[in-house]
Amino acid sequence: MSLVTWDDVANARERIAPFVHRTPVLTSATIDRMSGAQVLFKCENLQRTGSFKFRGACNAVASLAAQERARGVYAHSSGNHAQALALAARLHGTSAYLVMPEDAPEIKRQAVADYGGRITLCPPTHRGRVETAERIAEETGARFVSAHNDPQVIAGQGTALCELIEDAGDLDLILAPVGGGGLLSGTVIAARHLSPDARVIGCEPAGADDAYRSIRGGRRITDFTPKTIADGLRTPLGENTFEILRAHLDEIVLVSEAQILTAMRTVWERMKIVIEPSSAVAVAPLLDRKVNAEGKRVGVVLSGGNVDLSAFFTDLGGRISAAP
Amino acid sequence: MSLVTWDDVANARERIAPFVHRTPVLTSATIDRMSGAQVLFKCENLQRTGSFKFRGACNAVASLAAQERARGVYAHSSGNHAQALALAARLHGTSAYLVMPEDAPEIKRQAVADYGGRITLCPPTHRGRVETAERIAEETGARFVSAHNDPQVIAGQGTALCELIEDAGDLDLILAPVGGGGLLSGTVIAARHLSPDARVIGCEPAGADDAYRSIRGGRRITDFTPKTIADGLRTPLGENTFEILRAHLDEIVLVSEAQILTAMRTVWERMKIVIEPSSAVAVAPLLDRKVNAEGKRVGVVLSGGNVDLSAFFTDLGGRISAAP
Repeated sequence: MSLVTWDDVANARERIAPFVHRTPVLTSATIDRMSGAQVLFKCENLQRTGSFKFRGACNAVASLAAQERARGVYAHSSGNHAQALALAARLHGTSAYLVMPEDAPEIKRQAVADYGGRITLCPPTHRGRVETAERIAEETGARFVSAHNDPQVIAGQGTALCELIEDAGDLDLILAPVGGGGLLSGTVIAARHLSPDARVIGCEPAGADDAYRSIRGGRRITDFTPKTIADGLRTPLGENTFEILRAHLDEIVLVSEAQILTAMRTVWERMKIVIEPSSAVAVAPLLDRKVNAEGKRVGVVLSGGNVDLSAFFTDLGGRISAAP
Repeated sequence: MSLVTWDDVANARERIAPFVHRTPVLTSATIDRMSGAQVLFKCENLQRTGSFKFRGACNAVASLAAQERARGVYAHSSGNHAQALALAARLHGTSAYLVMPEDAPEIKRQAVADYGGRITLCPPTHRGRVETAERIAEETGARFVSAHNDPQVIAGQGTALCELIEDAGDLDLILAPVGGGGLLSGTVIAARHLSPDARVIGCEPAGADDAYRSIRGGRRITDFTPKTIADGLRTPLGENTFEILRAHLDEIVLVSEAQILTAMRTVWERMKIVIEPSSAVAVAPLLDRKVNAEGKRVGVVLSGGNVDLSAFFTDLGGRISAAP
């Protein structure tokens, strides 16, 4: 019996439907030409809070019994999960407590606060984080929601693929990035039910290749130093996602930092959408034909679009003021 | 009898349907909150060639009789119309000749060439442009397609609003930017037929307020020096668009450069889509409630997403190489 089943994904879909955006599926003639494939992009960068994480967080909060839900939820994250959980909690009339390291960028703290999240800063160490989180759990009775290992989170992430297949039809190949493995796990569970012949490929930065090595070696690697611009993919697999991916995934491909940057730029310039580096990781293998997609119908889950644009707009503002 | 009628728009829609993207309609909880309205964004930045211009160009080329079409089309433009006409011609198996000033940015020349456009450079003066265009017309027998004044172009631009209303339902207020006036003219013609009670508002940079002053004064102003970051809106109204807007438009609102920049940043950051400054001009009046949209259903045509991203990605690439 799998940890997360198709029924869990189907239930998640019903549960979160009133809250999530049905994100569009976009195509690009340029990327089709580059890849030799027909590529259908599920735009979770256009999801509420700017990433697919809102699906899982929303399902986790919505799954709680009323009494438990009233006590709130907590997580330690300074990234997309924090924003997602904050909004999910607010929409369900409860509180999200987010433990964030003291050195988290102001822009990320602001985003979480804007969604109504209650932030507690902690020393930027593993121990500081754990101790702070434990204290909050004790004080509030809130329930921990893991960014990728919680079964309801995994089930929620699988709903993006359901919509993609509903809109785009059968797929030959499905690509999604892998960090903690929540999105990829949910995706592979949904794919096995909805498009059983599709090959599901996880895409990972070569500079954070723990999932690749974990699955290959049959043992979950948690001790490594990620070196990648794809900040959403620096996390190791969880215990649950490791088991799910080991059982169901077809393959993991690795991409370099230069490939990530090229893919990101190609999507921004040609598709006119803002994607974060983690999303570009699942586009990169198509552009240089690292996977054989020739003539195939390919689904790509674009995971998110949270990028710090301050520098770009400061520069643009400067150019306006300097104009003669 | 109007220069361009609803029937022209309806015919355009049928003619270009096989070629255009049906672009998505997106919403943003943040912008709804800021504006007090329910705002429905028609994302023509996600249109082929990155702007609504492809609709008009495509309709103009498709409207030509076979023999005339075979001789090709020409225009002088270094912007979105050039890319749009190049692709429209290629898809109809003919040639587009684009006259571009010698000092046009390499990135714009490349984009036009990528779509199969035939570029002729000219001295960056009015005279240089006219003489070069005349020579091409003589040599090739190609047909001139104005970026905004051609009736078939105007009719084509109106098709974006048809799709928006089909997807979003009736609207109380419709906002679109105004430069040469092609998009706004097509929009107002479509609006009068499909949503006759909707108020249609043109949005213009205060630094290029020729349309505002032309309509107010009852005389088309063509001699002015635009000062705005919204490079797509530096053109004066054409004779046809002036007449159409004078007859049908409800109002023009002006926005400052700072408002344009804020609106552009808000859309990139919150909606995760790339829009060019010209598009932001139609968002700006909502954010600071310059138009009264409180409680209304508002349609905004986001005109395009062609922005030079070189600096941003060069910077990002530099940070990757510099990472420890």
